Amino acid sequence: MVKQERAARTRRALVRAAAEVFASEGFALASLSAISRRAGVSNGALHFHFENKKALADAVRQEASDSLARVTGLAEDSGDALQALVGATHGLMGLVADDTVVRAGFELCSDPAHGRDGALRRQWQTWVEATLARAERDGLLAEGATSDRLAPAVVAATVGFEVLGARDPRWLSGERVAGFWELVLPGIAVDAAAVGFLPKKAAGQSG
Amino acid sequence: MVKQERAARTRRALVRAAAEVFASEGFALASLSAISRRAGVSNGALHFHFENKKALADAVRQEASDSLARVTGLAEDSGDALQALVGATHGLMGLVADDTVVRAGFELCSDPAHGRDGALRRQWQTWVEATLARAERDGLLAEGATSDRLAPAVVAATVGFEVLGARDPRWLSGERVAGFWELVLPGIAVDAAAVGFLPKKAAGQSG
Repeated sequence: MVKQERAARTRRALVRAAAEVFASEGFALASLSAISRRAGVSNGALHFHFENKKALADAVRQEASDSLARVTGLAEDSGDALQALVGATHGLMGLVADDTVVRAGFELCSDPAHGRDGALRRQWQTWVEATLARAERDGLLAEGATSDRLAPAVVAATVGFEVLGARDPRWLSGERVAGFWELVLPGIAVDAAAVGFLPKKAAGQSG
Repeated sequence: MVKQERAARTRRALVRAAAEVFASEGFALASLSAISRRAGVSNGALHFHFENKKALADAVRQEASDSLARVTGLAEDSGDALQALVGATHGLMGLVADDTVVRAGFELCSDPAHGRDGALRRQWQTWVEATLARAERDGLLAEGATSDRLAPAVVAATVGFEVLGARDPRWLSGERVAGFWELVLPGIAVDAAAVGFLPKKAAGQSG
């Protein structure tokens, strides 16, 4: 049992180290020895847990995907579908700001050396579409605003904040994200005044 | 003179080939020999024009920057500041869809192996901020809508369309970009009905 715990801890350290090296050098130039060195383990320990660099990237993406699912799940508990949407965008930016694994997971989405799989952004897009569809069914959207029309704009804006924020963290601030919602919500919500634009601490937002 | 023309043609072919190789493999894995082969010139000819891969990337970025400046300039001639903003976003998406040099230039903005310089996105951001400031001075913005508050949302959404469109061209369609403006303009323009949401052919949009 102690052995298993140690193995799990080593694996976590390797995933975090891989994310840090991917984020600073990109997938193509990241070397396995830089990753094991940063994790403070031997090359042999790295190979015990991960067959190759691709397997490390898959683990980064999986951990980022779990964090994203946690944030959207928390947001769903914070109120109706529109409040959940606002809360989840704040939570997402908080994750990108604070969690290297999430930041690296999103960057792998458009890294040509890693096949530009786009998986994590697609997970976010699917959740936004489903949540806006729920808002529509629950009668929260203003006349003429349909989830099909809104979802691409919301997905594009949030992906833009995430991409710009990877270079300059000011793009991830609660104020900037709130500014987007203040701009968009009055036009799409039956009752925009009922929705809080600012981050909820519960959604994992830091600033 | 004929010799100069041939040299200019070779240089253009090399910049285009570099953009294609950067876009498919990323900056880190792009090899100079793959670039000269794709341009149909010798390694010696490549080195006559460009000292190294970084110099090729700088040339890609410069050509992309010139194309972006052309599109925003054209959009400025198409009507008032809000119409120019709508026209330029359509023009930008048309460029990303049709012009590998522009697409590669934007991807270099967030390529860690190329230092994530962000230059092209900053050029776009600066133009959006100036154009919204002009809209504000000209009395085109609704009460409560200030250019300082609007610019980040517009920049984030358009960067999102550009990033998502590099993987899936449906994000660059005139309809999707028009959908964003239909969502946002009624809340920010004194007279949204006066602004055309759809692409103008003159702004370089293709579909």
